[in-house]
Order: sequence, then structure tokens, then C-alpha cells
Amino acid sequence: MSAGGTWKYETPRGTHRPPRVYVPSLCTTGSRVVLPPTEAHHLTRVLRGRPGDPVELFDGAGHSAMGHIAQIHAGEVWLQFGPIAHDPDPVWSATLVVGLLKGDKRDEIVRAAVALGWERLMFVPTRYSQARELKSEPGQWTERCMAVAINAAKQCGRNRLPRIEFMNDLNSAIQSTAVHISCFGSFDPSARSLVDLLTPENCPSAPRTGRFVVGPEGGLAPEEETWLKSQGFSPVRWAPYVLRSELAAIALMAVVAAHWGS
Amino acid sequence: MSAGGTWKYETPRGTHRPPRVYVPSLCTTGSRVVLPPTEAHHLTRVLRGRPGDPVELFDGAGHSAMGHIAQIHAGEVWLQFGPIAHDPDPVWSATLVVGLLKGDKRDEIVRAAVALGWERLMFVPTRYSQARELKSEPGQWTERCMAVAINAAKQCGRNRLPRIEFMNDLNSAIQSTAVHISCFGSFDPSARSLVDLLTPENCPSAPRTGRFVVGPEGGLAPEEETWLKSQGFSPVRWAPYVLRSELAAIALMAVVAAHWGS
Repeated sequence: MSAGGTWKYETPRGTHRPPRVYVPSLCTTGSRVVLPPTEAHHLTRVLRGRPGDPVELFDGAGHSAMGHIAQIHAGEVWLQFGPIAHDPDPVWSATLVVGLLKGDKRDEIVRAAVALGWERLMFVPTRYSQARELKSEPGQWTERCMAVAINAAKQCGRNRLPRIEFMNDLNSAIQSTAVHISCFGSFDPSARSLVDLLTPENCPSAPRTGRFVVGPEGGLAPEEETWLKSQGFSPVRWAPYVLRSELAAIALMAVVAAHWGS
Repeated sequence: MSAGGTWKYETPRGTHRPPRVYVPSLCTTGSRVVLPPTEAHHLTRVLRGRPGDPVELFDGAGHSAMGHIAQIHAGEVWLQFGPIAHDPDPVWSATLVVGLLKGDKRDEIVRAAVALGWERLMFVPTRYSQARELKSEPGQWTERCMAVAINAAKQCGRNRLPRIEFMNDLNSAIQSTAVHISCFGSFDPSARSLVDLLTPENCPSAPRTGRFVVGPEGGLAPEEETWLKSQGFSPVRWAPYVLRSELAAIALMAVVAAHWGS
């Protein structure tokens, strides 16, 4: 690739933008930053970037900047960047608590959470969960989730990364927080429609906030539903049939994002 | 598995239901039916069904019945079934037109369309589509899509299968039909919110009907958008960032299903 940037990837309407690169922090006083090893490898080996090629930097906390590759030396990649832009604060903030799933399904949910603008994601073992414990150390597990989230953020153009956590049980996941809406997906025929709950009357002031619990394929156990109700959560439904767990989570995230974020 | 049915799979609330089996037609005057080879194989080899084991039959057209395995002989599986139940007519009917995608992403959309209650799905090559033509004969292609749809219907409990078609171009996909809503996903900042369009004022009478076009990652080309507008389609948005094509389609289907189907 020549200096001046011939690399291109398709974005909306067939326009071309330089590749997006994640850096852990952009709030520096300088205008140069060294890339983390994974990003350096991707930029120089996979995308074949060379000095002079343009990039877009983002830090996962809402900051971004246009820049270019300044130097590649001994495996280190230095970027030079211009003025830092700050994304406005989000007008909504939602937390999804979802039954622990196997890796590929978990990754699907993480990618969707990023692209649909969700702020926080918690995975928790429930009575009918497919997976009951992590297959790796919590630190490695979180790192893997964040790598998936970073890739999704590069693709969708979002400059903020959601917070992603593993919680030991529903009790720790559902801490008392003042939010507009607290609900859980339920097969109970008397469950309210999620759409009815998302109306402006129920969330009068910005930022709109909510906590949403999605069980696994088998649903939440009766005692889990009872306990959630005692904690102020309402049973809701948002689809006509039984959804696989990852589809249930993605569908819920899509409905909330369409109401609050578009 | 012993007679009387010890096979079980998890369904909502940890209850157990017999496996669901697809038969092309249940509208017979008799009460016995022979299974198609694929279903026979799955029932006897994968699930290890034996005579006497209970099953739930559905025909993909809204009919279902409880029954059991009557006879297994020379590779043929005969089922005996009881009274046929007819699902009520759907209160909404929606068609998704989506840019042609590679197999696994297409299957994701098919599975979601079934579980989210969609009635019709059309895949069409657009200017920026990942895939421009079918990799197989149209007949084989459709058969493969229907196999995915049948499996999804078994899992989610729906007794109707969507109609799934490959269309040569947008023009053939968008035939003039009287529907309440016609819209396409657009990155245009002036695009309306999909949620605003789905209000009862815009779809006053049941069944609620709509046609929805979702472009590929690169979006629809400007001339495609212009042409859709000339055919009465409105540009809409339902998510804050750029979505992968399959996530865009699934998110849209989820939003419509939550509004019309729950």
C-alpha cells in the first residue's frame, strides 16, 4: 500500500474510510501514540499498513481522532493524530443480564451489544443455562470478550465500548440501581409487551435507563422469576415464539435500541 | 428410548414436550402419515425414536396434531395422530427483502424469520451485495433454506413456515401490493425512525402488513434508494450505528415482531 492511503473498505453508500484502530487511551496531551501489540499486528500484517497511511483512532471511551502511521520500527507502530473529538453523552443507558452461553453464542451477543449501542453486558449462570461456569480464567474470559467488542466497534463506527462482566449469580448482577425500567423476559401469557413498557411515559427524562434480564432456552426457573419480581422486575415479552437464547437477547437489544437510540 | 416416551427436551419453564416432526401435509382425512426420508432419519437415528413414542406433528401451514410412532419398517416411519388443531390466522404479515448473503449468514436470517413470525423472505442481489448469484441451482437453494426453516420451526414451536424466495433483482422483489407500510433501511440522517412508522395510526386495520428492504453492509446504492422512493418506499432507521447485514435484518425483524406480534 502506498503512502497517502489506498486501503479502502466499504462503508455506507459505497464511500471509503480509513481503517479504525483501537488505542486504550486518547486523552493525552501529545499527538503521538504507540499501538498495543494486537492492533499493531493487525494494522501492519493483516491490513499491510505503511508509514503515511491514514487511520481513524478511537479509545472505547467516546474519543476519536483522524491520524496516520508515523513510524514502524522493531515491531512498534507509532501513530500521529490530529484534534480529538468527543462523542456526546449517550441519551440512553441499558444493561443486559443474560444467562451464560457457550463462546460463539456469547460472541454474537457481544457484537450485537456494541453495534446496537448498549452500555453494559453481564453474563450470569442461571438454573437452566447451557454453561454453568467459565472455561477460562475470569481475566482471560473478559479479555476475549473485549477483543470481540473492539472488532465490532471498528466495524460499526462506535467509539464507546460496553462494559462486559461475568457475575457469579443473578443476585450480584441485579444490584439496586435507580433506573426507569427493570424487566425480564417471560413466557407467562400475562407478561406485558416490552414495547408498551418503552413508551416515553415510563421513561420521562433523559438519559433513559433500564435493566433487562434474558434467560436461557429453558427460560428462567420459577424461583428466579419470583425473586426478580420481588426485586421490582416486571415480566415482559417481545416475540411470538420461543427464541434461542442468543436470538432472544439480540432481539431485545434491537427493540430497546430502536426505541431509545434511533 | 422406551415406549411411552422418555425423550425430553427443554422447553419454557423446564417442562418437557415430545419432539416436533414436520410433515408436508396434515390436512388428510386419515389419522396416519408416513414421514419424509429426512424426518424419518432424524426421528429414528438421531433421536432414537421407537414405536409408541409420542411426537408433535406440524405441517408448516398452521396445522398441528399430537401423535406417536405407529410403525417403523424398511426405513419407513408411520405416525398415528389425533385431532388436527388449526392455528388462528396471523394478525400481521410482513415481507423482508434482503441483499443476497453467503450461506451461513443467510441461514441466520432464515432462522430468525421463522422464530420471529415473519411470513415471507426474499433474497435479492443488490449493487453492494456480498454475493451476486446463487452458488447452487435455485431448486436446491430453496430446499436448503426450507430445511433450515423447518429446523427452526421445530425448535421455536411455530406451525407455519415462511415463504422463502430468490429474486433476480429488486424490481421483481417489489411488486405492487397493497400494504400498510413500505420502507427501506437508510443511513440518510433524514430517515424516519422505524418505531414511529409502526404506530397503530399507520396500520389501522388487522392484519397489519408491511414490506421492508434491508441492504447489504455497504447499504443500498443511491440509484436503488431513489428507485425505491419512486415506488412508495420510505427511508427508515432502527439502530444507531452501521450494522452487519444479517444483524440489520434480524434487528428489523425483531422490532416489527415486537410491535405487531407480541
